[in-house]
Amino acid sequence: MNANLKKDLQTLKQAHKKIAVTTELERNKVLEALQYKLIERKAEIFSANRRDIEKAEIELLSKQLIKRLYFNEGKLKSVIDGIKQIILLPDPKGRILEARELDEGLILKRESCSIGVIGMIFESRPDALIQIAALCLKSANCIVLKGGSEAAETNRKLAEIIRDVSDELNFAAVGSRWIYLLETREQVKKMLELDEYIDLLIPRGSNEFVKYIMNNTTIPVLGHADGICHSYIHFDADIKKAIKVIVDSKCQYPAVCNALETLLVHRNIADRLLPELLTALESEGVEVRGDEKCRVIIPCVPAVELDWKTEYLDLILSIKIVESIDAAISHIHTYGSGHTDSILTESITTAEYFMNTVDSADVLWNCSTRFADGFRYGLGAEVGISTLKIHARGPVGLEGLMSYKWKIYGNGHIVADYSGEGCRQFTHKNLT
Amino acid sequence: MNANLKKDLQTLKQAHKKIAVTTELERNKVLEALQYKLIERKAEIFSANRRDIEKAEIELLSKQLIKRLYFNEGKLKSVIDGIKQIILLPDPKGRILEARELDEGLILKRESCSIGVIGMIFESRPDALIQIAALCLKSANCIVLKGGSEAAETNRKLAEIIRDVSDELNFAAVGSRWIYLLETREQVKKMLELDEYIDLLIPRGSNEFVKYIMNNTTIPVLGHADGICHSYIHFDADIKKAIKVIVDSKCQYPAVCNALETLLVHRNIADRLLPELLTALESEGVEVRGDEKCRVIIPCVPAVELDWKTEYLDLILSIKIVESIDAAISHIHTYGSGHTDSILTESITTAEYFMNTVDSADVLWNCSTRFADGFRYGLGAEVGISTLKIHARGPVGLEGLMSYKWKIYGNGHIVADYSGEGCRQFTHKNLT
Repeated sequence: MNANLKKDLQTLKQAHKKIAVTTELERNKVLEALQYKLIERKAEIFSANRRDIEKAEIELLSKQLIKRLYFNEGKLKSVIDGIKQIILLPDPKGRILEARELDEGLILKRESCSIGVIGMIFESRPDALIQIAALCLKSANCIVLKGGSEAAETNRKLAEIIRDVSDELNFAAVGSRWIYLLETREQVKKMLELDEYIDLLIPRGSNEFVKYIMNNTTIPVLGHADGICHSYIHFDADIKKAIKVIVDSKCQYPAVCNALETLLVHRNIADRLLPELLTALESEGVEVRGDEKCRVIIPCVPAVELDWKTEYLDLILSIKIVESIDAAISHIHTYGSGHTDSILTESITTAEYFMNTVDSADVLWNCSTRFADGFRYGLGAEVGISTLKIHARGPVGLEGLMSYKWKIYGNGHIVADYSGEGCRQFTHKNLT
Repeated sequence: MNANLKKDLQTLKQAHKKIAVTTELERNKVLEALQYKLIERKAEIFSANRRDIEKAEIELLSKQLIKRLYFNEGKLKSVIDGIKQIILLPDPKGRILEARELDEGLILKRESCSIGVIGMIFESRPDALIQIAALCLKSANCIVLKGGSEAAETNRKLAEIIRDVSDELNFAAVGSRWIYLLETREQVKKMLELDEYIDLLIPRGSNEFVKYIMNNTTIPVLGHADGICHSYIHFDADIKKAIKVIVDSKCQYPAVCNALETLLVHRNIADRLLPELLTALESEGVEVRGDEKCRVIIPCVPAVELDWKTEYLDLILSIKIVESIDAAISHIHTYGSGHTDSILTESITTAEYFMNTVDSADVLWNCSTRFADGFRYGLGAEVGISTLKIHARGPVGLEGLMSYKWKIYGNGHIVADYSGEGCRQFTHKNLT
């Protein structure tokens, strides 16, 4: 099977050469046809999904997991709405990012183009498969997918429908050869070695899972492992504003990567802030864990070293009293994950110092960490969140699936004319 | 020593937090002081360089290698001119790449910032050390350097001078702790494992060397291994123009990565083109190796399979007759390295088809492959050439050393207000 996988991915890589030159119209046509086909064949999807659910119930998977597994009328509608939105996004391919006259009649352009073959590995929710495939199609990339094994039947059916639509339209003269579904962990393991055929990996899932991928491949990985987010409350913060923002950061949706995990409080505001904050947090059911200095002011569970390193993803908040903004920043650099960190202060100078110094993808002033998200940023679509510092950082839109190439348009120009004494000079006139 | 290396790189990583918030003025001050210090201490540099040269002569290194090893008055002048140019470049840090109003009083900005710690590994020429360090300093990055062992004494002296200048100015309150010189291969090997402390690797050197780095680390690598560049001559090409461009592509500087290695000729122009082209190439001392069809038209050495895979870096050109533009593109995708490929045709439609389909960093029409270069592109400075498709592709300027962060400026905004029925809507008004 592994020999086949290599050959199959080679086919995808070759198909990308054709996909890369498709027009927006051709790609949108497949997306449009997919909308109708999903409705037409919904009975097949629901029945495949029922088999997954039944298996999950027999295997006594958690209720929460089973809930995420459902693919019903509601999910179908939201999946189709998602495709509609992706169709409406502007074509990310063929955008002129830079243009420069090098000399008379010698023009340089930097133009966006697709990357190639994207490896997407995600867990449980089968509706993610459609969204991910649609984003790759829109951006003229090929895709290798691996979904959660709990959703194997649903994923197989959804991939089959995408493939059928692509074949029926003979998309880019390669039909369905732009999408490939992996079904086993062995295949994923093998894929991590095939850096010749996979250009970028985007894993979504648990910390351990993403870390495993990152540590076991030379293929570039776009993603984030931890999301240990901090807020720091400076001594001059507006207490009412701070409490409102902290409660939102922690409670609005605690199970996600941009939820607040650790609060750092300047000692000169702790006395006034903490009792009122505790009341607000407790009314939302939050368990507070404080360091020694914190526990002098409010009653709470003692925080231990492990707390600073933990992404609770739950209604738990650790609190530490700090002596200065630099102590707060140092704590963030020691325990943070470079994801999202915020400051509450009434001084823009203090805010800028914090935002410039903290080495995280998203740095926020006087607002909830929960804003760090592609939809809220207005990116149109979110491909993932990255804590990488190269290629794409923070919430990543369709641009994260794009590369660029340099094109030069000449008319017999040669380099020899531009070297040596008294040679021609470049004009380097920007055209954008 | 390896335990020390880890600790030392940790120090660099910490120092980057200070470097990251330096002003352009602070960074330029170090560069200015460095110019003077290099002149002041040139006797020390020349004497260290003489020791390297003497050792190289005793070890019977090639004349060409020894020539590149020299650091004399001429090299000093060009190094200082280089620093001057880098000082004049606009600050790459703190540029607003995107700005958007999310809602009233809630502003999102995407701002350029430095990446962190860059690992640069280069061979022989000691003047490269200064240029590389100056580029990293300008862009507010820390740097770990490893130069060629032949230049060990010169490199050590140059790094010492950079460190002394940084310490004397107490740069960013970290002094010289932003630059670190590796001296052994064991250290390089160890560095490849320290992905926690190195954010990006930029190796410069032989194919095997760059490939070794790429295959032995999970740190992102910016660079290129091969540069097997092609030109394709379509049947409608202007023969005079084509010959001029091909001779330049091959001969203007054959030892570099953007020099032409394989020429693909459409069969319907071969008869008219090849005899005249052969004369032009032979008068430049080029050895031509042709496939069977080519040898029917002109006398030349037979080209074998290995020729299509070889980066000659020498006055040798392989020629293949193709049946169509698609056959040419297919050859390029089979044997090319995604570096630089050109087409000669009088039709812009044909040119665009070629440039859109060929999956290379640089695709050129009717001009020499030798134009694919950061200086000629007007990038200000060239950090390297990349055949990666993520982060940076083709000639890479200072931007290749930059990342970005998202900043949000709010005033007590919370996400709860933007969710649920009748909630507040984002305005998503672009401000750039």
